[in-house]
Amino acid sequence: MATIKDVAARAGVGLGTASRVLSGSAQTSPSSRERVLAAAAELGYVAHGPARSLRRARTDALGLLVSDIRNPFFSELAHAAEQEARAHGYALLLANANEDADQADDALRTFASQRIDGLLLSPQGPATPQLASLLARAVPIVLLNRRIEGVDLPFYGTDNEQGVGLVLDWLQERGHRDVAYVGGPQTMSTGAERARAYLGGRAAHGIATDDALVDAGDFTTDGAAAAMLRILDRGVRPTAVFGANGATTVGALRALRERLGADAGGVEVVSFDDFDWFAYASPAITAVRNDAAAIGVGAVQGLLALLRGEDATSQRIATELVDRAARS
Amino acid sequence: MATIKDVAARAGVGLGTASRVLSGSAQTSPSSRERVLAAAAELGYVAHGPARSLRRARTDALGLLVSDIRNPFFSELAHAAEQEARAHGYALLLANANEDADQADDALRTFASQRIDGLLLSPQGPATPQLASLLARAVPIVLLNRRIEGVDLPFYGTDNEQGVGLVLDWLQERGHRDVAYVGGPQTMSTGAERARAYLGGRAAHGIATDDALVDAGDFTTDGAAAAMLRILDRGVRPTAVFGANGATTVGALRALRERLGADAGGVEVVSFDDFDWFAYASPAITAVRNDAAAIGVGAVQGLLALLRGEDATSQRIATELVDRAARS
Repeated sequence: MATIKDVAARAGVGLGTASRVLSGSAQTSPSSRERVLAAAAELGYVAHGPARSLRRARTDALGLLVSDIRNPFFSELAHAAEQEARAHGYALLLANANEDADQADDALRTFASQRIDGLLLSPQGPATPQLASLLARAVPIVLLNRRIEGVDLPFYGTDNEQGVGLVLDWLQERGHRDVAYVGGPQTMSTGAERARAYLGGRAAHGIATDDALVDAGDFTTDGAAAAMLRILDRGVRPTAVFGANGATTVGALRALRERLGADAGGVEVVSFDDFDWFAYASPAITAVRNDAAAIGVGAVQGLLALLRGEDATSQRIATELVDRAARS
Repeated sequence: MATIKDVAARAGVGLGTASRVLSGSAQTSPSSRERVLAAAAELGYVAHGPARSLRRARTDALGLLVSDIRNPFFSELAHAAEQEARAHGYALLLANANEDADQADDALRTFASQRIDGLLLSPQGPATPQLASLLARAVPIVLLNRRIEGVDLPFYGTDNEQGVGLVLDWLQERGHRDVAYVGGPQTMSTGAERARAYLGGRAAHGIATDDALVDAGDFTTDGAAAAMLRILDRGVRPTAVFGANGATTVGALRALRERLGADAGGVEVVSFDDFDWFAYASPAITAVRNDAAAIGVGAVQGLLALLRGEDATSQRIATELVDRAARS
């Protein structure tokens, strides 16, 4: 565990300066503040003991920063987290990062000034100064669904490897060889973990390892539709398409319908993330049910453990496959 | 405009007591607090002048209380409101009422203690003590999509009558006579206004006025599915179904598919509220596009006007019909 001396040394400042920055004092220069907070983030420094007593009085409010409130995965997670928080006497305040690191940092700043007892955070990428500052001030934090490189916090998320395994088994059982994969950003742990599991498992499941069948968007509908069109433009003709999250599947579906008609030319579609309406889609969509509610509930329980001064245990939530393929 | 004397008289307390309650003093009994706040809500009392100076320092945060964060209408509205607030230097903190008046009141209490500059509120029903208290403390508030009986606040919502008119015209153009209507709660202005416009306009559009074709849920998928099944159980056989909001349409669709098969027995479906995925549904769903983003942006602009000390102008946002009916 890093000490404040380690932080001062890494930042190249004196112990007094590091101490002032980490206690939130305004008597520090912007440049030393930046260096100290970056060093604290890199070292995973968390203030303990006396510093913890600087924490403000209990407010009975928790903060939840989601990546994209329009993504049903996060609105479902927010709803479940709020019900769990409420059952324990806490209000839940939400903010939306809109998949944007600057907006995420602004939201963290607002939460810091709004006196919350703890934070549930779905990260947009690497650690930011605002996050480092919250960590250094010992605000209890748990992570949702995405990890942050170099930051060791309790984590509540989907078991991506297990979920992709279900999809690979399904593709094999259905006899698919030419499968298109529309992935997400490699900079997000969800995008990277799902791609690794899928690409690494193809050969063992009888699926072609042709790179022309693989492309990636940015986990939005528009980005995924463009990626799907790039795949089709290469002249390959997949018999199935795997979308790496819900929005990605919707974008791939849109592109398939535009190019191949309302039945997507008979291409079977499988998704990581299940949306309620997939049962009513044409063509039907088979999906890995990513249990947003269980993640939200587990994360709140973990945060409450931290607030009681106990340890929180990270959880990887297992998924289920909802098979909607037509059987003859 | 009601004065503090009117409030005291209505509440049956002295002027000093009314003044203490409305300035948020703790030196009042619970019973007089309740009576004064109820009277203030009934009279639409808003503190002015000196009372306004009791307002706390600017926090650069706005609060948004939505009815149901899992409803895409509200998550789209929240996203648009947040972008607009951000463009004007304000953070937006969300809370979810979960279509529940008690949860709404808890959220208002949290917002009151969290120091927000103003509030965007989607009401769950009649005025509550917490709302009356915020009003009496002159916290600027605008209403989203639903009105509150007896409370005169700037309002930003859908033009329900105009939207239902588009549906009636479409039903007539398609030659439908036996149309099922699955409505929402009469206690919500949206439910009441849409039902009034539809039921009142049927005859003039050649639609049967048979009451067996009409039922209502609670604006949730499950409630609407039950209502749709009740209609079918009466032995009527509609050629089209109109759902009074997005979740209601999804519930009606589910019930139709369960009873009549994946093509809903050829019944055409039309919805108040358009969800992105309706384009990919089977059967296709025609829908009134309820412009959640325009409502969110207009409401933030209205709230910012109030914060500048200007008047805010209520807006009824017109809808468009997205026709997805199959043409032969």
